[in-house]
Amino acid sequence: MSRTTIPARMSAWQWTGTGRPLVRNEVPVPTPQRDEVLVRVRAAGMCHSDVGELDEPSWVENITRNPLTLGHEIAGEVVAVGPDARDVRTGDRVGVFPMGRTVPGYGRDGGYAAFTLAPSEDLVPLPEHLSFDLAALGTDAGMTSHHAVVEVAGVGPGHRVGIIGLGGLGQVGARIAVLRGAEVHGADISPDALALGERLGLASVVDSADGLVGMDLDVVVDFAGFGTTTAAAVGAIRTGGTIVMVGLGAVSTTLNTADVIHRKAHIHGSSGGTRNDIVRVYDYLAAGEIVPTVEHLAFDQVPLGIDRLRAGTVTGRLVVLMDDETAAAARTQED
Amino acid sequence: MSRTTIPARMSAWQWTGTGRPLVRNEVPVPTPQRDEVLVRVRAAGMCHSDVGELDEPSWVENITRNPLTLGHEIAGEVVAVGPDARDVRTGDRVGVFPMGRTVPGYGRDGGYAAFTLAPSEDLVPLPEHLSFDLAALGTDAGMTSHHAVVEVAGVGPGHRVGIIGLGGLGQVGARIAVLRGAEVHGADISPDALALGERLGLASVVDSADGLVGMDLDVVVDFAGFGTTTAAAVGAIRTGGTIVMVGLGAVSTTLNTADVIHRKAHIHGSSGGTRNDIVRVYDYLAAGEIVPTVEHLAFDQVPLGIDRLRAGTVTGRLVVLMDDETAAAARTQED
Repeated sequence: MSRTTIPARMSAWQWTGTGRPLVRNEVPVPTPQRDEVLVRVRAAGMCHSDVGELDEPSWVENITRNPLTLGHEIAGEVVAVGPDARDVRTGDRVGVFPMGRTVPGYGRDGGYAAFTLAPSEDLVPLPEHLSFDLAALGTDAGMTSHHAVVEVAGVGPGHRVGIIGLGGLGQVGARIAVLRGAEVHGADISPDALALGERLGLASVVDSADGLVGMDLDVVVDFAGFGTTTAAAVGAIRTGGTIVMVGLGAVSTTLNTADVIHRKAHIHGSSGGTRNDIVRVYDYLAAGEIVPTVEHLAFDQVPLGIDRLRAGTVTGRLVVLMDDETAAAARTQED
Repeated sequence: MSRTTIPARMSAWQWTGTGRPLVRNEVPVPTPQRDEVLVRVRAAGMCHSDVGELDEPSWVENITRNPLTLGHEIAGEVVAVGPDARDVRTGDRVGVFPMGRTVPGYGRDGGYAAFTLAPSEDLVPLPEHLSFDLAALGTDAGMTSHHAVVEVAGVGPGHRVGIIGLGGLGQVGARIAVLRGAEVHGADISPDALALGERLGLASVVDSADGLVGMDLDVVVDFAGFGTTTAAAVGAIRTGGTIVMVGLGAVSTTLNTADVIHRKAHIHGSSGGTRNDIVRVYDYLAAGEIVPTVEHLAFDQVPLGIDRLRAGTVTGRLVVLMDDETAAAARTQED
């Protein structure tokens, strides 16, 4: 626990309307009311949905204030506690469940700032050895992957599983499936996918979703969502097999009607997850059983991260380290 | 039970290859071997999949003999019993489970003939008051509808259910949902759909699948399968709702990827069903709780029925009555 002086104002990367660039504003540091706590943000994961908020007019319906600090993958340290907050103390290391009472970076100011508010019920304690950067990505990328693979697909020992897309979410999902005892086959167009697959413990890696067709898999989780990938998934499952759609790569997904029906496919859309998914992912991360590909950015580089997400040139997960102290700890961990 | 003289030969409407018209051939009446029985066909339902067999090259892979007597919705009377057949006697009134050891009209000669063979384990006894014509359609149209609505969708009391397409299968499915205690909303483009909906006990009927969008339904069963209808179904369910795809109206189904994911849709392909589905549908039919729209044809009119199915001008189910006796009984029932 570090001693933190809470300043009156802070810098925040803010959304100010669809089609406008992210703006760095000086804003007041808020004071926790009722059951809220103030979290000193130590790490904030960057997500492709940030680009959706900035670029897609239809996303405005989920955004309830303007200007709004973006960032919904948050881990940090509790530095102030509201009068009604329960089971939390100053100094606690926490992740923030992003699908609680309101959504950070959508329904309230998010994590691209030095401090953020969160309801105490949405806090997830960090296990002792879990670093802030992994804790940040665990709240959304980890939660969403775990939910899709474990809660929705029900992957367990002996299942034969296909994972389409080994990006930020997919590689975590693939690794969780391996840890659950499944035989896991990955599909990814990246030239690095084969090496990544070996590191994750996959049984095989093919260079496109079509490469899974005919494998009679019990489960396919599509973290890419390019429409064609889900169509391939229908061809990759056994009769009565399960497909989980997570990725939003393309607006439309076109499936062969007869294949869905005659294969008695079970297709589930999966979005987000539960607080419990985060708890379980934190245990895996703290034990070193999941080692996601992470790339660190400094606070000044948030707009650069947005540009890279928009361009699709990100491998693994971008995580903003909010201060020198966190960055130094992350460097130590990497050594 | 009528006394039946088994002739040596009979007429059969036979498939002789893709793209060729159905041919009326004189063929030997077979003798039951092992656990088979010989069924005097009293009624044979006509199904749109007959058209698929005749017209679509890809269907050949499911057809294992040439020439082949078509017809897979069969009800009749057992007239001869193989040496190893169990729990069946001459004179038994039976329906034939079409998804058993082999499929009549695909893997063995089917019901468009005076007699057909069936394994004794695939027979379903007719309740006392069930007519042969309803028993015939119960084996496939009834089974498939019941399976989709009850076994796959899990429709039960208080559920709010949409049924897309009130044709042969859809109207049975809609009625079963009503009988299960659901609030059922139908969608059908036919001008007669509103009156049909009242007869079935539906809460409302809209004139297109799009009319269901926004209704936050627990379940939608798509008996049409025109792609656009399934897309509408995704918009018609509540978050976490269930869609069952049964109809094969269009080759492709295009869905909005984000809608599937954010609504956490559960989409299931459903094809066929189990022997138990037939048993339960027979009870509904015998009790008069399901009164399907049936149109009777004589044996000579099988090719006419095919033409009408191909043209899409059939309302309800076409059932071939194989002899004057069955036709007279069906007329008495209608009066």
